[in-house]
Amino acid sequence: MTIAVIYGGNRPNGNTESLTKLATQGLVVEEIYLKEYVIEPIIDKRHAEEGFPEVNDDYNFIIDRILPHDILIFSTPIYWYSMTGIMKNFIDRWSQTLKDTNYPDFKKQMSQKRAYVIAVGGDQPYMKGLPMIQQFQHIFDYVGTTFEGYIIGEGNRPDDIAQDLKALSAAEQLRKKLQ
Amino acid sequence: MTIAVIYGGNRPNGNTESLTKLATQGLVVEEIYLKEYVIEPIIDKRHAEEGFPEVNDDYNFIIDRILPHDILIFSTPIYWYSMTGIMKNFIDRWSQTLKDTNYPDFKKQMSQKRAYVIAVGGDQPYMKGLPMIQQFQHIFDYVGTTFEGYIIGEGNRPDDIAQDLKALSAAEQLRKKLQ
Amino acid sequence: MTIAVIYGGNRPNGNTESLTKLATQGLVVEEIYLKEYVIEPIIDKRHAEEGFPEVNDDYNFIIDRILPHDILIFSTPIYWYSMTGIMKNFIDRWSQTLKDTNYPDFKKQMSQKRAYVIAVGGDQPYMKGLPMIQQFQHIFDYVGTTFEGYIIGEGNRPDDIAQDLKALSAAEQLRKKLQ
Amino acid sequence: MTIAVIYGGNRPNGNTESLTKLATQGLVVEEIYLKEYVIEPIIDKRHAEEGFPEVNDDYNFIIDRILPHDILIFSTPIYWYSMTGIMKNFIDRWSQTLKDTNYPDFKKQMSQKRAYVIAVGGDQPYMKGLPMIQQFQHIFDYVGTTFEGYIIGEGNRPDDIAQDLKALSAAEQLRKKLQ
Repeated sequence: MTIAVIYGGNRPNGNTESLTKLATQGLVVEEIYLKEYVIEPIIDKRHAEEGFPEVNDDYNFIIDRILPHDILIFSTPIYWYSMTGIMKNFIDRWSQTLKDTNYPDFKKQMSQKRAYVIAVGGDQPYMKGLPMIQQFQHIFDYVGTTFEGYIIGEGNRPDDIAQDLKALSAAEQLRKKLQ
Repeated sequence: MTIAVIYGGNRPNGNTESLTKLATQGLVVEEIYLKEYVIEPIIDKRHAEEGFPEVNDDYNFIIDRILPHDILIFSTPIYWYSMTGIMKNFIDRWSQTLKDTNYPDFKKQMSQKRAYVIAVGGDQPYMKGLPMIQQFQHIFDYVGTTFEGYIIGEGNRPDDIAQDLKALSAAEQLRKKLQ
Repeated sequence: MTIAVIYGGNRPNGNTESLTKLATQGLVVEEIYLKEYVIEPIIDKRHAEEGFPEVNDDYNFIIDRILPHDILIFSTPIYWYSMTGIMKNFIDRWSQTLKDTNYPDFKKQMSQKRAYVIAVGGDQPYMKGLPMIQQFQHIFDYVGTTFEGYIIGEGNRPDDIAQDLKALSAAEQLRKKLQ
Repeated sequence: MTIAVIYGGNRPNGNTESLTKLATQGLVVEEIYLKEYVIEPIIDKRHAEEGFPEVNDDYNFIIDRILPHDILIFSTPIYWYSMTGIMKNFIDRWSQTLKDTNYPDFKKQMSQKRAYVIAVGGDQPYMKGLPMIQQFQHIFDYVGTTFEGYIIGEGNRPDDIAQDLKALSAAEQLRKKLQ
């Protein structure tokens, strides 16, 4: 059982990253920081005769890094009540991979994985973050990934998350489960 | 009363665009196609001493085009149960504008606008698109924009939207209201 | 193809009822007004050895009236952002019917039906009514009923619904579809 | 700072009750079991000239018991993805109290309270229970009550909740906060 963490944040050592580190402390994890890569927005060619063009960016490299793992942790700060734009662009591109003959088993592979979401927001995330959780559920349902759970934390300024005892406790629980 | 339409789709003449054109037919509208512009993801410097760096892309140009208008229509295909990544990157950048001394009245200006969302999706959008609608509500609430209404349509393949009589009828209603 | 309408409101000639009448005008429909019946809250005996006791109320009579129909329309005013308590009590009792040996095919029969929801609320129903729509989706998913669509209307004082052109237009569309 | 717990369940010693007892262990709490009372569904007379009739049931007695307290805990099993019908009937009646001259300060009093929701469900409550949480948010917003937090637990058969370590841990956290 191996774990990949996909970080969607854009601030080094942000609250979401801290909470995720707590949840994965002492575990071997493959860490992917989306901000370090170039991920083009999808050009929707699902119904074009010529199909999707090859894109010269880092997207497939990231896919290659996550596919070998059993557990995926999506770690995203809540920007404007949803995942960050770079994480959204990453997920949007799955539509292309689903049609990519180089990844004929993409959906099947995703369907064998389990996923967690860790998200920290500053404006009532325990309420206003819920639509994002529902979207992740729909996303995972579509590719067959099991949505094992999520942790929402509250924080705005750096290190705020250290005050959210409920989130810290949930991260501890998750760490025990992942061991 | 003037209208700007912000298109978030990536396919020319897509279903969402068609539905939006129907809702704005015969009206004078400023049309902004996000796909024609470079919009960098936000680098979150809200809490950095140095503040946000200037970004050399088209974002501010788009902001300058929408701010003069009274009504904003956000037109986005539903990709993975939410707005497209490029529209999300656009909205993420509002955090920067809210701190930008060149736009001291950004929030006040946004609070005087009324907004509509038009969105078409292929996988049960009338249900699975609802979290996105809730997110737009939270987004508009944050900047004080009045969320006047939304139209959800169903479509996957090109021109599917022509079969969604309910959406077409709602677009007609909206057009009458905007006149 | 026959239709049963289940009215959950408590006010005669309320806005929800008016909107529903418009959607079913000229059609043969079996109309069930829950307020005219005694429906006890469920006593949860799902896990009790002795099972559910027989309840001496009108619940089964209503079930018997709806089961023969192909299409069910749940018509409820939005009270406190959800269906009315009497409609909730009615649906809560389905847990009992699912275990009732007198209705061995309840789930199978429900799974062959198609459902619509018509709901009118006074406090931003197009937004704040969405969680209720999501709940109906979960409810229908559980018993296998196809959730064909919903109409939300806005209204508070009597006859307000006549001003909601969008809802009236959607009711017209539905009526054409049901013919 | 005093606490009232409003139990909406219908099974003695159910999972929701157990989780709530854990969260309030050692604290002085006023416990109200709705199932022990008669609460009539609301007859919607908000717009009737004659106003609401007096209802001869236990509703006002319950209101009188909760109003003196600073913190309200709504403890409800998740039946069909929402609060129980008896809890819904209880809340529906608030519309009457809001117009009741015997309770001229009802809204003001509610606005000074803080609320928690504790809910246990059997069918993916961490996902499918979220619309109910959003509804409670809308309910509390309407009367001005501060929604301090919620605990969702998973359980179906009696005592299942003892296996939900995340929920137990959250209940512990809440207890420390309430002390």
